[in-house]
Amino acid sequence: MTTKTGIVADLRSDTVTRPSAGMRAAMANAEVGDDVYGEDPTVRDLETRVAGLLGHEAGLFLPTGTMANSVAVQTLVPHGGELLCADDAHVVSYEAGAAAVHGGITTRTWNSPDGIIDPAAVAAMIRPGGGFANPTQAIAVEQTANLPGGLIHPLDRLTALHEVARRADVGLHCDGARLWHAHIATGTPLDTYGRLFDTVAVCLSKGLGAPAGSVLVGTPDHIADARRLRLRAGGAMRQAGVLAAGGSYALDHQLAQLAEDHRCARELAKVLAGLGVVDPARVETNIVLLDLTASRWTGPDLTTAAAERGVLLTAVGPCRVRAVTHRDLTDVQLGHATDVLRRLLDA
Amino acid sequence: MTTKTGIVADLRSDTVTRPSAGMRAAMANAEVGDDVYGEDPTVRDLETRVAGLLGHEAGLFLPTGTMANSVAVQTLVPHGGELLCADDAHVVSYEAGAAAVHGGITTRTWNSPDGIIDPAAVAAMIRPGGGFANPTQAIAVEQTANLPGGLIHPLDRLTALHEVARRADVGLHCDGARLWHAHIATGTPLDTYGRLFDTVAVCLSKGLGAPAGSVLVGTPDHIADARRLRLRAGGAMRQAGVLAAGGSYALDHQLAQLAEDHRCARELAKVLAGLGVVDPARVETNIVLLDLTASRWTGPDLTTAAAERGVLLTAVGPCRVRAVTHRDLTDVQLGHATDVLRRLLDA
Amino acid sequence: MTTKTGIVADLRSDTVTRPSAGMRAAMANAEVGDDVYGEDPTVRDLETRVAGLLGHEAGLFLPTGTMANSVAVQTLVPHGGELLCADDAHVVSYEAGAAAVHGGITTRTWNSPDGIIDPAAVAAMIRPGGGFANPTQAIAVEQTANLPGGLIHPLDRLTALHEVARRADVGLHCDGARLWHAHIATGTPLDTYGRLFDTVAVCLSKGLGAPAGSVLVGTPDHIADARRLRLRAGGAMRQAGVLAAGGSYALDHQLAQLAEDHRCARELAKVLAGLGVVDPARVETNIVLLDLTASRWTGPDLTTAAAERGVLLTAVGPCRVRAVTHRDLTDVQLGHATDVLRRLLDA
Amino acid sequence: MTTKTGIVADLRSDTVTRPSAGMRAAMANAEVGDDVYGEDPTVRDLETRVAGLLGHEAGLFLPTGTMANSVAVQTLVPHGGELLCADDAHVVSYEAGAAAVHGGITTRTWNSPDGIIDPAAVAAMIRPGGGFANPTQAIAVEQTANLPGGLIHPLDRLTALHEVARRADVGLHCDGARLWHAHIATGTPLDTYGRLFDTVAVCLSKGLGAPAGSVLVGTPDHIADARRLRLRAGGAMRQAGVLAAGGSYALDHQLAQLAEDHRCARELAKVLAGLGVVDPARVETNIVLLDLTASRWTGPDLTTAAAERGVLLTAVGPCRVRAVTHRDLTDVQLGHATDVLRRLLDA
Repeated sequence: MTTKTGIVADLRSDTVTRPSAGMRAAMANAEVGDDVYGEDPTVRDLETRVAGLLGHEAGLFLPTGTMANSVAVQTLVPHGGELLCADDAHVVSYEAGAAAVHGGITTRTWNSPDGIIDPAAVAAMIRPGGGFANPTQAIAVEQTANLPGGLIHPLDRLTALHEVARRADVGLHCDGARLWHAHIATGTPLDTYGRLFDTVAVCLSKGLGAPAGSVLVGTPDHIADARRLRLRAGGAMRQAGVLAAGGSYALDHQLAQLAEDHRCARELAKVLAGLGVVDPARVETNIVLLDLTASRWTGPDLTTAAAERGVLLTAVGPCRVRAVTHRDLTDVQLGHATDVLRRLLDA
Repeated sequence: MTTKTGIVADLRSDTVTRPSAGMRAAMANAEVGDDVYGEDPTVRDLETRVAGLLGHEAGLFLPTGTMANSVAVQTLVPHGGELLCADDAHVVSYEAGAAAVHGGITTRTWNSPDGIIDPAAVAAMIRPGGGFANPTQAIAVEQTANLPGGLIHPLDRLTALHEVARRADVGLHCDGARLWHAHIATGTPLDTYGRLFDTVAVCLSKGLGAPAGSVLVGTPDHIADARRLRLRAGGAMRQAGVLAAGGSYALDHQLAQLAEDHRCARELAKVLAGLGVVDPARVETNIVLLDLTASRWTGPDLTTAAAERGVLLTAVGPCRVRAVTHRDLTDVQLGHATDVLRRLLDA
Repeated sequence: MTTKTGIVADLRSDTVTRPSAGMRAAMANAEVGDDVYGEDPTVRDLETRVAGLLGHEAGLFLPTGTMANSVAVQTLVPHGGELLCADDAHVVSYEAGAAAVHGGITTRTWNSPDGIIDPAAVAAMIRPGGGFANPTQAIAVEQTANLPGGLIHPLDRLTALHEVARRADVGLHCDGARLWHAHIATGTPLDTYGRLFDTVAVCLSKGLGAPAGSVLVGTPDHIADARRLRLRAGGAMRQAGVLAAGGSYALDHQLAQLAEDHRCARELAKVLAGLGVVDPARVETNIVLLDLTASRWTGPDLTTAAAERGVLLTAVGPCRVRAVTHRDLTDVQLGHATDVLRRLLDA
Repeated sequence: MTTKTGIVADLRSDTVTRPSAGMRAAMANAEVGDDVYGEDPTVRDLETRVAGLLGHEAGLFLPTGTMANSVAVQTLVPHGGELLCADDAHVVSYEAGAAAVHGGITTRTWNSPDGIIDPAAVAAMIRPGGGFANPTQAIAVEQTANLPGGLIHPLDRLTALHEVARRADVGLHCDGARLWHAHIATGTPLDTYGRLFDTVAVCLSKGLGAPAGSVLVGTPDHIADARRLRLRAGGAMRQAGVLAAGGSYALDHQLAQLAEDHRCARELAKVLAGLGVVDPARVETNIVLLDLTASRWTGPDLTTAAAERGVLLTAVGPCRVRAVTHRDLTDVQLGHATDVLRRLLDA
């Protein structure tokens, strides 16, 4: 990955962001205790704060978004029950089978061509159970929708889905790994989103830039269940406040910066749209999805060629490549990435 | 369910068929042994015979189709892996979550508007795994497709799917609970179907009329795995030959009769088509699916009203009702069912 | 296994018993229906009858004892909870891991040198749960205790255990595969045993001689849960009455015969005691456990040598061999077995 | 817990230790990267270093000891297999059922009166599998043994156990949460212990004083499996180097200090021995186990009374209380604890 210019633009994911100097200082000075005994004040503060931001009563700090999601769906779906989600949702496709293995959860999935939720179609998939039938117990939605390209489910769709779930008496979980991005992009208050769901998981280590950690929010009952499940999963760390302090710092100082990530994504998208591989109307947050179908590239080939020129991307399919903007990406790096992609795709 | 005429036509399912006098005699005279020790000759004969019919090397007798399916997918999908199937497949929706609970199997599902498999769409769902991604390990297909109305997947589609599975190196299972019906309706030899799959489960207790039992076929390795999984599931019966004898008798004497079931279904469909609730082109085997969307009935209401008049049906959705023909249905009963439905739907 | 005399004495297990002529006739004439719809009168009769015999309200017919046990412990132990049982209990050691796989059940085991339950020792193993601790939810006991040699837990011990379980508010399951034998050997009424437990599983296919089937009894709530779990396990057969009829016949005509099995075991034990390999005081029912520690034989070697002479036994450890008497064992066969073992062990 | 003196001595566990100033500085300055991509140099260094210390080839950093243990036993025991361990082992009793739920692992347990492993007794519990029998796949041992009172399994016993495991071809895991303590107390090199096992999990957040984190070591194959299982469990953190740096600092600067913890435990034990509640010969490391059988106290009552006087203990049974010494315990606090316990127990 060393190149002539020496510039490396890492657009693989916003998970590569490193703690800032201010965040490191906050972590180093965090007041901590044994969180398994409920005695870490920094963890407690963060849990309370995030619950409040999302309009929920209780919160739980977990080491990763994967654990937050898998624990959340287990609190909503009794062992052996059924969860509905998108075909390409993190919870079904990118958690190494955790829901099925840990919770005995059957998943049935929908595939929407445009990546945006269709509440009526989801409603039609719900089954009441009885006899041999496995009852639908919960629905999970990603906001923003990662694989479809960081798309934002519109509020009216989510509100309609909320009504579907209530009428059918099934749980509703939001995998809000990048819910912050939807909030910043649309101005919709976090709790307006949050109140539509029974549980919401948000991630501190992606765009927000903390080294690790997610927070799950819900009712006190759900969170008590989740606390037990976190323990079983091996996520009950002791002086977790050193990580939670990073999350709190991010909320104070690094959340607004996501607007800048969105701007960078739009700039990159504009150039790539000119090359026929991006639909700029579908770049709503910090993810730019390249559709290479009409180009001479496959996803893996373009990824390899770009990497050799110091631009790191992720192939997410035979004809699809994902570029993610984030706070550690400099203007120079973004410019370099734009130039390299232009040259490769224009050739 | 007693009515003025005293006639009861049970069209809920072909599972209600009772053993015939000849079958009872065969069962009573069966030579048996302890099948857990591999010493029941009647079981062994049936296993060998069904394996041969389906073009496979080895077979295993199991108490139910649910166990045959859940064991089969566990032989194809390692613990924690992923299975693709139709949204309304028995293996994902009507086995009380067995695949997820017993095998830790993640399911991702497709929804085809016409109920018939689309090999290209399935191919697009296969994921290779690696990192967080859960690899697709197998695909399951129902032949005939029950919930879509007993439809027969055309041979060319299944052949194309076979190619998809081979190229992606994923397993392919056939839930052939009513594979017999596809064979009788199309004339396609059983082994022509069978050889397209790694494992095939066929049922002896539906249209064939045996009291219980399914046979799973595959390679000797798959069947050795399945034998162990059958034991864990609690399906390793001792003198199982008393049941297997019923299955063997059915293959000798009751298979051809399925043609008659298909004829009855077509007759019923013709009348119901005239009433606007059945598309006769979609009645290919022994299942008649009523679509009540354009009628004044809901599925549960029609089912209740018909039951009060001695006609037993199954509501399979808010606007859908299923009628199944079978060997225990007399002409008089079929006539009664036709009359009752005509009167209810015509009103 | 063909020998000069042609006599084969099969003492491997009482599971090898075949249905008698009377039983076959009863099965052939059984009134049946679709038991998944709750419409098989023969199954219903058997379930009600066995529940009554054991002093319980509800019963459920299942294909095997393994399924009856694994379903029972899942009704008593919520997913992820803990079960206590003997180290060599069927439920932990001979069900291919069903409790852990299907129910996520942690097992902790006791080892009693004499194979008989020690209620105080069991009481000391119970843990309340909380924090990281996994709470004990149920205890399982085998009556008779198979691996220890068909020993009968004395009623006062079981009564004390019942008190332990009640005080700790944990469930109590009886794996009563051979509870019939304890009843016949001691005269203790079946319901005196049965009422000490929350759930009892009894087997129809061992000493009783039916081809397959077990009945689980408990409260209506437990049995409703068990019905759902039976479905998931793949044990919901359709016209199961053909098997249940065998069980009912056995209760009518073949239960008393167990006394004869016990007599045969005592006779065999007397001879083997003279050869120093059996403690006759520990032969209480139909199982004779040979301890070869002081002999020149290993368990597998003796089993092989006896088999070559037409006597089939089961090695249950490096120095232990099990012989089981049953209704299909003739006097001639028993005499042959005694002679062969005498000659081998005396040499 | 505020008292007249204001002194609080927290002897509940060594998990309450907080990061030291030096450790905080090391964490704040740690070089980090995205560990899910294998790019965190601080994590990699720690993994390599701990693997080397323990005589193994590969290592993996995980958020907790619970995850390290549950992942380790899943690498040694295939889904559905069996693990042997002590009745009071963390892996069976204090991980909320993780082994059974996540790995479908059946556990059989031994109970040793003195808490020290008896290799012959363990050998007798191993079962080969086949038929219904669930094969023993691995054995787990805690060093030091926590619940028995921080006891050290002697090296010759562990060596004999190693031989037992090798002969039976079963895996051997060491839950080495406090293996450091055994090493410091006996002078036995870490790799002398480590080489006896297939996998070893060591904890950085107990006596060593890091805020969180464990390292699992084994063969490259085991660690590759463990990496996948860590991901499923939700333990794949991104910039985990901030935690790993704490672990590395602890190994450099805080390991030797355990000798001081052991001295404190012996001092406390001496006083409590005089009061008849501790056997000083059984205080080998940093855990003092009070046996209250002969006193007027129950475990919970003494714990409550001590807490009211500023001394925090853990009741680990109706008659047992645990006191743990650690690096954050001052001489003044230890003196206060000694005084309070003397007064309470002497009364």
